[in-house]
Amino acid sequence: MSSLDEFALIHRLTQGKQSLAFQQASGVEIGIGDDAAVAHLAPGSQLVMTCDTMTEQIHFKDITMRNPDIGYKAMAAAVSDIAAMGAIPRYALVAVSFPKETSQTRMEEIYEGLYECANRWSVVIVGGDTTSSAGGITVSVTVIGEVEAGKALLRSAAKPGDVLFATGELGRSAAGLDFLLAQNVPNKQWNDDLNWKERLSLIQAHCRPEPQVEAGQLLQKSGVCHALNDVSDGLASEAWEIAEASDIGIDLIEDRIPIADELMSYAQQAGKDPLDFVLFGGEDYQLVGTMQAEHAITLQMKFKEAGLTLHIIGYVNAETKGVRLVQSSGYVLPIEKKGYNHF
Amino acid sequence: MSSLDEFALIHRLTQGKQSLAFQQASGVEIGIGDDAAVAHLAPGSQLVMTCDTMTEQIHFKDITMRNPDIGYKAMAAAVSDIAAMGAIPRYALVAVSFPKETSQTRMEEIYEGLYECANRWSVVIVGGDTTSSAGGITVSVTVIGEVEAGKALLRSAAKPGDVLFATGELGRSAAGLDFLLAQNVPNKQWNDDLNWKERLSLIQAHCRPEPQVEAGQLLQKSGVCHALNDVSDGLASEAWEIAEASDIGIDLIEDRIPIADELMSYAQQAGKDPLDFVLFGGEDYQLVGTMQAEHAITLQMKFKEAGLTLHIIGYVNAETKGVRLVQSSGYVLPIEKKGYNHF
Repeated sequence: MSSLDEFALIHRLTQGKQSLAFQQASGVEIGIGDDAAVAHLAPGSQLVMTCDTMTEQIHFKDITMRNPDIGYKAMAAAVSDIAAMGAIPRYALVAVSFPKETSQTRMEEIYEGLYECANRWSVVIVGGDTTSSAGGITVSVTVIGEVEAGKALLRSAAKPGDVLFATGELGRSAAGLDFLLAQNVPNKQWNDDLNWKERLSLIQAHCRPEPQVEAGQLLQKSGVCHALNDVSDGLASEAWEIAEASDIGIDLIEDRIPIADELMSYAQQAGKDPLDFVLFGGEDYQLVGTMQAEHAITLQMKFKEAGLTLHIIGYVNAETKGVRLVQSSGYVLPIEKKGYNHF
Repeated sequence: MSSLDEFALIHRLTQGKQSLAFQQASGVEIGIGDDAAVAHLAPGSQLVMTCDTMTEQIHFKDITMRNPDIGYKAMAAAVSDIAAMGAIPRYALVAVSFPKETSQTRMEEIYEGLYECANRWSVVIVGGDTTSSAGGITVSVTVIGEVEAGKALLRSAAKPGDVLFATGELGRSAAGLDFLLAQNVPNKQWNDDLNWKERLSLIQAHCRPEPQVEAGQLLQKSGVCHALNDVSDGLASEAWEIAEASDIGIDLIEDRIPIADELMSYAQQAGKDPLDFVLFGGEDYQLVGTMQAEHAITLQMKFKEAGLTLHIIGYVNAETKGVRLVQSSGYVLPIEKKGYNHF
């Protein structure tokens, strides 16, 4: 905190947004207002820590995201990393830099998004820093979670005999971004499109992603999940990370990859291959991982009971390295590792 | 992480900088490379969390800081917040945004500074995010520490009968900045000044501040320290924070405030009041706090044994509010709360 003006600003942006009762129930002893926050985790649990940054022009701009979306998504991306360890997100620190000309309304709306997402997943914002920037808004979120000691789900844990799963449809966020960029008008002015309901669903996937905290918990507690990743850079990149870290190969089965109707419809209209969005798009924040094949059906039923889905979309191939796509025709295609490049 | 290029870059900036043995000895189970890091704290300890951001043009520019200083100081500022709770810094996550034109050398030097400071205080960098920015470099550091449950030193804990202490000389960093800005040439080209040794000491205070982790530990373990703050915004601002949070008044005794010779010399040459640097300068990262008066001498001796200093510079005044300066003449001056405004 570098000046008293900043102190007053931070006070306005953060004061009274999360009740003392909620903070205390979450193990917070000292929240925002001292040099640092103090909290405790459950006995026997390990710390899980991650950090995600979103910068203007790179991760968002006026034509792609509204102010509250920026805060919401920055928090969601970090929460998703915690979910991808099978851990529970608990505390967040947010570092936000604003150019001097940023309106107070814009700042407040970005913070509203941060708090909306934090509240949704019961994360307490215990600190942060609000500073000026020389150009562009930067939102950096650190989330600290907890997991039972030794139970974190690593990307290096895939084993021969595992199947590959995904907790939801992929590629929707990238299609939403593709649509917004094609419209090239500030987000919210786009909805004269004939298929606005379908487009809205894709835009929602891009602007308001849902970290799969509950799914991550189910997977961790099941005891049969091996490797786990969240989809920040597209299925190809995430599968590659698991394959490389675990020193195995992964075969994706094209027919088993769930593709949302609205993605099919958009891809058709835009003259693009829906699978490109799935494989090389990003920021879906669904979970992708591997598990013992024989427990798949039981776990799928548990997911269904919880109102969640678990799609089996491939398997670990102990005879290969890297990632391949088994097409409907039976043809097997090597899949590049390339991740999603913003804009 | 938004693209594979970034992945390769982060790998280059962070790989092999801290040994696996050091990380494991520090309780890290999973470091950089998975969705999130996993570590454990000592049983019975609480989490202490803080975040500090430095942005180009606001907190640093070419004429004030060299590349490694930027990383070093960003880490030092966050470590200092942990020290100011009487806690031990353990883990850090660093979010760095670079404009696209930033040279790889510059990036590497900033990361070298981050690691140099982290190594100095045995902090493991367990994660972070490296992204592009639309303008200016932003370095945001989150540090997670630990403290014995219930033992954190809060700024709200000052009590009537306490004396006010500082762990070192104040105002040196602000004087160093003042000198660098007056020179108005890139830092490192200034040293044709006649008094370069004295100037270098002030510049060092500005560019390479020393968080008072050991002093914070001594204070916490002493059991007689009440309130504690680190000096990020100048003595006046920090004393005000303690006074307001503790609902008491603080009287500073002008004759007891230690002022470094090199600060006296610089202030004289620049025609400025050295006390202005002390009261309204910032970023000294010394600790200021209150303790039971009767234990002051014993604790001062403990500090001396540890090669540290503890200056008694004032006292809690139960009859007043806010901060006052008791001048040599006996005249008592109310002190404004104004903090340090960058540039």
